[in-house]
Amino acid sequence: MKTVGKRKPPSETHRRKTVSVSVGGIRVGSGHPLVVQSMTSTDTHDALRTLKQIQELSRAGCELIRVALPDQAAIPAFQKIVQKSPLPVIADIHFDFRLALEGMKAGAAGIRINPGNIGGPAKIARLIEMAEQKGVCIRIGVNAGSLEKGLLPRWKTEGQAEAMVDSALRHVAIFEKMNFKNLKISLKSSDVLQTVRAYQLLAKEVAYPFHLGITEAGTILSGTVKSALGIGLLLYQGIGDTLRVSLTAHPREEIRVAYEILRALGLRKRGVEIISCPTCGRCQIDLLPLVQKVEKAVQKYTHPLKVAIMGCVVNGPGEAREADIGIAGGKGLGLLFSRGKLIRKVPEKDLAESLLEEIKKMI
Amino acid sequence: MKTVGKRKPPSETHRRKTVSVSVGGIRVGSGHPLVVQSMTSTDTHDALRTLKQIQELSRAGCELIRVALPDQAAIPAFQKIVQKSPLPVIADIHFDFRLALEGMKAGAAGIRINPGNIGGPAKIARLIEMAEQKGVCIRIGVNAGSLEKGLLPRWKTEGQAEAMVDSALRHVAIFEKMNFKNLKISLKSSDVLQTVRAYQLLAKEVAYPFHLGITEAGTILSGTVKSALGIGLLLYQGIGDTLRVSLTAHPREEIRVAYEILRALGLRKRGVEIISCPTCGRCQIDLLPLVQKVEKAVQKYTHPLKVAIMGCVVNGPGEAREADIGIAGGKGLGLLFSRGKLIRKVPEKDLAESLLEEIKKMI
Repeated sequence: MKTVGKRKPPSETHRRKTVSVSVGGIRVGSGHPLVVQSMTSTDTHDALRTLKQIQELSRAGCELIRVALPDQAAIPAFQKIVQKSPLPVIADIHFDFRLALEGMKAGAAGIRINPGNIGGPAKIARLIEMAEQKGVCIRIGVNAGSLEKGLLPRWKTEGQAEAMVDSALRHVAIFEKMNFKNLKISLKSSDVLQTVRAYQLLAKEVAYPFHLGITEAGTILSGTVKSALGIGLLLYQGIGDTLRVSLTAHPREEIRVAYEILRALGLRKRGVEIISCPTCGRCQIDLLPLVQKVEKAVQKYTHPLKVAIMGCVVNGPGEAREADIGIAGGKGLGLLFSRGKLIRKVPEKDLAESLLEEIKKMI
Repeated sequence: MKTVGKRKPPSETHRRKTVSVSVGGIRVGSGHPLVVQSMTSTDTHDALRTLKQIQELSRAGCELIRVALPDQAAIPAFQKIVQKSPLPVIADIHFDFRLALEGMKAGAAGIRINPGNIGGPAKIARLIEMAEQKGVCIRIGVNAGSLEKGLLPRWKTEGQAEAMVDSALRHVAIFEKMNFKNLKISLKSSDVLQTVRAYQLLAKEVAYPFHLGITEAGTILSGTVKSALGIGLLLYQGIGDTLRVSLTAHPREEIRVAYEILRALGLRKRGVEIISCPTCGRCQIDLLPLVQKVEKAVQKYTHPLKVAIMGCVVNGPGEAREADIGIAGGKGLGLLFSRGKLIRKVPEKDLAESLLEEIKKMI
C-alpha cells in the first residue's frame, strides 16, 4: 500500500505509553502492534466445533481467542481446546472464580474476569496465586451491563463512564495491593460516547494496556458503525493496545472489521484494500457485481495491496494511478493501471479476470 | 432513547461555528441539525427510475439528493426530476460549467462543482451570476482523485490534505472576490486520515458549512468502516454540517449508515437502535435469527427507540433494563423487560412476536 502524503498516522506520533504484558507469547502494549482478537460463538462444551472456529479465525488474522468457560462441565472440552488451539486461549469467566482457577489449570494463556460479578479480595487472592504460578495475564473486563450494584448510584449521579472507571480502579487497587500487575483493562458499554470517555478517563490513571471494544454493538451494519466509531476514536487518540470488534454475526466478520479499522487508521495492513466509487448517473460499466466479485476473490490474500475499481473518468484515472492496481471504467471497457501506469484497455466482460490476474502477479 | 449519564455529546458542546446556507429550504450550518444526503445511482437520463430512487431515499430519511448531470442530453430528464422530486435536488457537475448553468435553469436547489475540472474565473463568474439570480447554493467539492494538475507537486511535497485545502482556498478566493458567499465545501479522499486532516486544516481558515464524506470508500463493510471513522472523527471534533456516506451499494444503505453514525454520536435519532450481544458459549437461545428478524421488521419505524436483545444472564438483564424494551435470554425462554421493568417470561419460539408487539405498542 502506498503512503499518501507525509503525515504519519496519529497513533505513531502519540500512542499512549503502557507497560507490556504477554498472553501466551503475544505481546500487548504500546511497544507492540495492535493485537486483533475475537471470541468463539460456539458451545464451549463442543471442543471440535470450537476448535474448527478458532482455526478459521486464525486464518482470517485473529491473534488471540477468547472462549467462554460457563461451567464446570465445560472444563474437559476447554482443556482440549487449549491444547489444540493454534492461538493463545483466554478463558472468559463470570460469577464463579473457581472456573478461573480451573481455566488456568487447563492451560489458559489469559483470563478475563468481570469485576461486577467475580467477588471480593479473598477470591481474587486465590486467582492471583494461580495466575502467578502459571504466568497468566488477567483482564479486568468491566461491562456497563453488569456493573457492581454498588456503583449504580454513581452511574446515576456522575455518569456511566465514571462508574465504569470506578469499577476498574477498585479492582486495580485490589490487584496492586497484592502486588500483581500482569493486567489488561477493558471498559465496554453499548454507548459509544460513554465507552470513549471511560477509556480517556482511565488512561490518565493507569499504565496497563487497554483492550478496546464496544459491547453489544448489534448486527453487522450497526455494530460495524459503532465499533469503527468507538474503537477508532480511541485509536486516533493513541489509546488502545488490543481490540475486539463485537458483532451479532459470525466472528470472522469481527476480524475483517478489525483489520479494516486498523488499515484505515494506518496502524496495520493486511490484505487487499479496495477503493471503489458509489456509482452515479455517470457510471458506464456495471460496477457493483465487478467489485463484489473481485472483493470475494481477493479475501484469501494477506499481502497488503491497494486496488481501485472506478466507474468513470472523473476520479477514475486519479484513483487508479494512486493505487497499486486500478481500473477506470469507460463505455463498455476499462483502463487498466498498474503501479501508476496505464497498461491497456480491457473490454468490460474481461475486467474481473484481468484485474485478478494482475493482482495475482503483483502478490 | 434514554440518555445515559450526564455527559452531553461532544458536538453539542463545541460544534464549529459556521454561517448558514439554504439548499431548497433545507438549512445547513452549525445552527441546524446535521443534514443527511445521498446521490442517485441511476442513469439521470431515465427520469422515472431516478425519481423512484429519490422517493425511496426520501422515505429512508434522505434530506438532500444529488444527481449527476453528465451531459446536455440529460437536461430534460433532470428538469423533470427536479420538478417531481420530494427532496431539493443538487446537480453534480464535472468538466463543463455550461451544464451547471443549465442545471440551475432547470431548477436545481444546489450545484456541486469540482475545482479540479470546472475551469477558471471567467467561467465561475458566469456560474455566480446565475446562482445569485436563482438563489442557488454552490458546493466547492474537492476530490483527491481529480485535483488540479497544478497541485500535484504540492501533494508530493506537503501532503494530500494540504493540496486539497489549497484547491478549496483558491476557489473560495475566486468566489469571494466576486462577492459570492452562498457556499459549502467538501474535501474528500479515499484516505481517512488525509480527509480528516484536510477538514481540520480548512476549519481554521473559513466559516463555510462543511459537507463531509470519504470518497470511493468501497463496498458496504469496508465503506462503512471508513465512513464511520472519517465522518465520525470529524463530527466528534465538532466539524461538519451535512454528510454523505459513499458506498458501492444501493444508496439506501448510505442513508442507514449515516443515521447509525449520527445516533452513535448522539447527534440525531431516527428509528430503532438494537443492542445485541455477539453470542458466545454462554448463549442459550438462537439469537442471530431472532435479532435479524426483529431488525428487519422495525426498519419501517422512524420513532427513536432502544431495544436490547441479549443471549444470557451476564449482561442481559442489565442491558435490557437500560433499554426501552429488552429481552434477556435464558434456557429456552427470554425475560421481557419494558421501560426497565421485568414484564414476563416468554418461550423462545414466541420471542420475536412478543418483542415486536411491545415495540409496536410503545411506538
